[in-house]
Amino acid sequence: MSDPIYLDHNATTPVAPEVLDAMLPWLRGEYGNPSSAHPYGQRAAQAMAAARGQVAGLIGAAAQEIVFTGCATEANNLALLGVARALGVEKRHLVVSAVEHPAVMAPAMHLRSLGWDVTVLPVDAFGRVSVDDVGRALRPDTALVSVMHANNEVGTLQPVAAIAALTRPRGILLHTDAAQSAGKLRVDVDELGVDLLTLAGHKFNAPKGVGALYARAGTPIRAVMHGADQEHGLRPGTENVALIVALGAAAALASASLPDLTPKLLALRDRLHARLGAGVPGLQLNGHPQHRLPNTLHVSFPGVSGRALLADAAATLAASVGSACHSEHDAVSGVLAAMGIDTARALGAVRLSVGRTTRVDDIDRAVAALVSAWSGLARA
Amino acid sequence: MSDPIYLDHNATTPVAPEVLDAMLPWLRGEYGNPSSAHPYGQRAAQAMAAARGQVAGLIGAAAQEIVFTGCATEANNLALLGVARALGVEKRHLVVSAVEHPAVMAPAMHLRSLGWDVTVLPVDAFGRVSVDDVGRALRPDTALVSVMHANNEVGTLQPVAAIAALTRPRGILLHTDAAQSAGKLRVDVDELGVDLLTLAGHKFNAPKGVGALYARAGTPIRAVMHGADQEHGLRPGTENVALIVALGAAAALASASLPDLTPKLLALRDRLHARLGAGVPGLQLNGHPQHRLPNTLHVSFPGVSGRALLADAAATLAASVGSACHSEHDAVSGVLAAMGIDTARALGAVRLSVGRTTRVDDIDRAVAALVSAWSGLARA
Repeated sequence: MSDPIYLDHNATTPVAPEVLDAMLPWLRGEYGNPSSAHPYGQRAAQAMAAARGQVAGLIGAAAQEIVFTGCATEANNLALLGVARALGVEKRHLVVSAVEHPAVMAPAMHLRSLGWDVTVLPVDAFGRVSVDDVGRALRPDTALVSVMHANNEVGTLQPVAAIAALTRPRGILLHTDAAQSAGKLRVDVDELGVDLLTLAGHKFNAPKGVGALYARAGTPIRAVMHGADQEHGLRPGTENVALIVALGAAAALASASLPDLTPKLLALRDRLHARLGAGVPGLQLNGHPQHRLPNTLHVSFPGVSGRALLADAAATLAASVGSACHSEHDAVSGVLAAMGIDTARALGAVRLSVGRTTRVDDIDRAVAALVSAWSGLARA
Repeated sequence: MSDPIYLDHNATTPVAPEVLDAMLPWLRGEYGNPSSAHPYGQRAAQAMAAARGQVAGLIGAAAQEIVFTGCATEANNLALLGVARALGVEKRHLVVSAVEHPAVMAPAMHLRSLGWDVTVLPVDAFGRVSVDDVGRALRPDTALVSVMHANNEVGTLQPVAAIAALTRPRGILLHTDAAQSAGKLRVDVDELGVDLLTLAGHKFNAPKGVGALYARAGTPIRAVMHGADQEHGLRPGTENVALIVALGAAAALASASLPDLTPKLLALRDRLHARLGAGVPGLQLNGHPQHRLPNTLHVSFPGVSGRALLADAAATLAASVGSACHSEHDAVSGVLAAMGIDTARALGAVRLSVGRTTRVDDIDRAVAALVSAWSGLARA
């Protein structure tokens, strides 16, 4: 039996063949420690420098503004906790959205436990925060605003640039978790106006196990882990050379292919939506109709459980009912709850996310399987 | 020009071909997120479970006692800071040795900045702590003792089991950083009597970018980073599947080959020492003559700078004057200073570390180059 069609690119993506090719030398003869003074080490250091430039290039940053980490969660922790460590005690107010990933929400709650005041902004029915709400939340003691670029479940894009227009004049730092958006659509730190931005390699065809934090030059930030002086003193530990090279290659691939990839993803997703809508009367879209990731279709099937639906269609396609981090629980997603979506609609939801390797034929076969599964369950 | 002979296995090691073979499927078709419920995810979760068992097997632990991390530095941070978070305020005394790696010493100093009392144990001329000193340092409020298994520079092994005989009856936790010892000699958590133990994949032929912390069942410890619930809630973030599989394969390789590998390393190292000693009158060994890593020869060449010596021999061999983390500085190593080694001897020191791929012929060619370089410099 062949593998099911993979429509779970928001959970993780295949490693691109060119990315694997780029990293393989660093898993074979090129095994130096970048801190070593001899040629093995210096070649590794040079490869890391090139990768740093490639990652910076993807987001319009300077190479020295990139800190490599072990994952996006670590980058988010470094952003929130590292800024908290660098700032004095006068500014201890943090603003986050209600739909942040746990990798932002959990460090935010940790800061609350340390005495920070944390404002959690509500979202509208499409999962979007209101820029006016952000404006009202800002205070003289606000240190940092962290609002994700794109939501991992419903794909809604947040008005990050408009938020930056409020934070920058006030000297308030702005962080965005771009784990889900980078590599799918254009992400530029100056256009967004952010001081800190998180990248997740495995969401754009690098392996799992590498991420990066962009920290604009001059941003007050300190390390969260303690050790030697790697990564400008912000992330100790021998560097993950092969996966850092892979992240660079994935960034270069994304930079080169985005002008074609974004519309391709959009076309696949909209074909999926149109055909599913035709086969499933009453299908409801969750997330913003326009301000949304080009690859993400989060829909509620009427009268059925999304989990049961995916189980019935499992031979044909692999997708999820929400974020992978919560795949074992049958509770309503906190993101959907924050959007005010009722329980029945929430439990009927499925997240379908296309990617670089998705073909038109995959879409059509997935639609047939989902419509058939829904028909069977809805009749039962 | 061919690459120089690599005698810097304490800085990092080549990825073993069988380790690369084991991880490649997880960089190709097997790209699932282990948290996903579908077959892609479940296969990744199973691969991680198998790797966890392999890593546990290397050190005589149970699989559920292994927490995968992004590097040994992260594991050391998790050990020290995670235990500190889990314990109450009554026990805030930490004991470390003076020759710990920065990945232990820096988190220890961070705890001091948080109000902990930190006792730094001296070492003798061979780099070893005194068990009596440990006994005298323990107090009713001692929470944790962290003494490395083997020193990264001189290779001296610490009396960890004897320390455990003091800490365990008192209910004091014991951590050891086994980054340098695991995969080179037998490491067993019960024989050592430790509650926490750190592993570094890249020191035993897995890639850089993965480590693990052993935490004995029941050990009070909390996460240092905040996010989703991966790794028993102790290390959030999408798992580094390919490198975790690689760590498992490297652990299995080490488990299987240690009975042959340890004596092979020892023979290579002792040949290196004997021949260098014959060619360089006045050569001095640093570190313990017996209680020392089987692969590590740290020696001071009389009347020359170790850095200059390695520069002169650079076409033939790649080694270092100390830890890779400090390769850029021409200062006396803190480890050698703690051992009471004088400046001239310290600046004449070179660390030569053999490994799985080192051949007898490499040793003889390296000796010839080092003796020749020393003769040239000493005459000058």
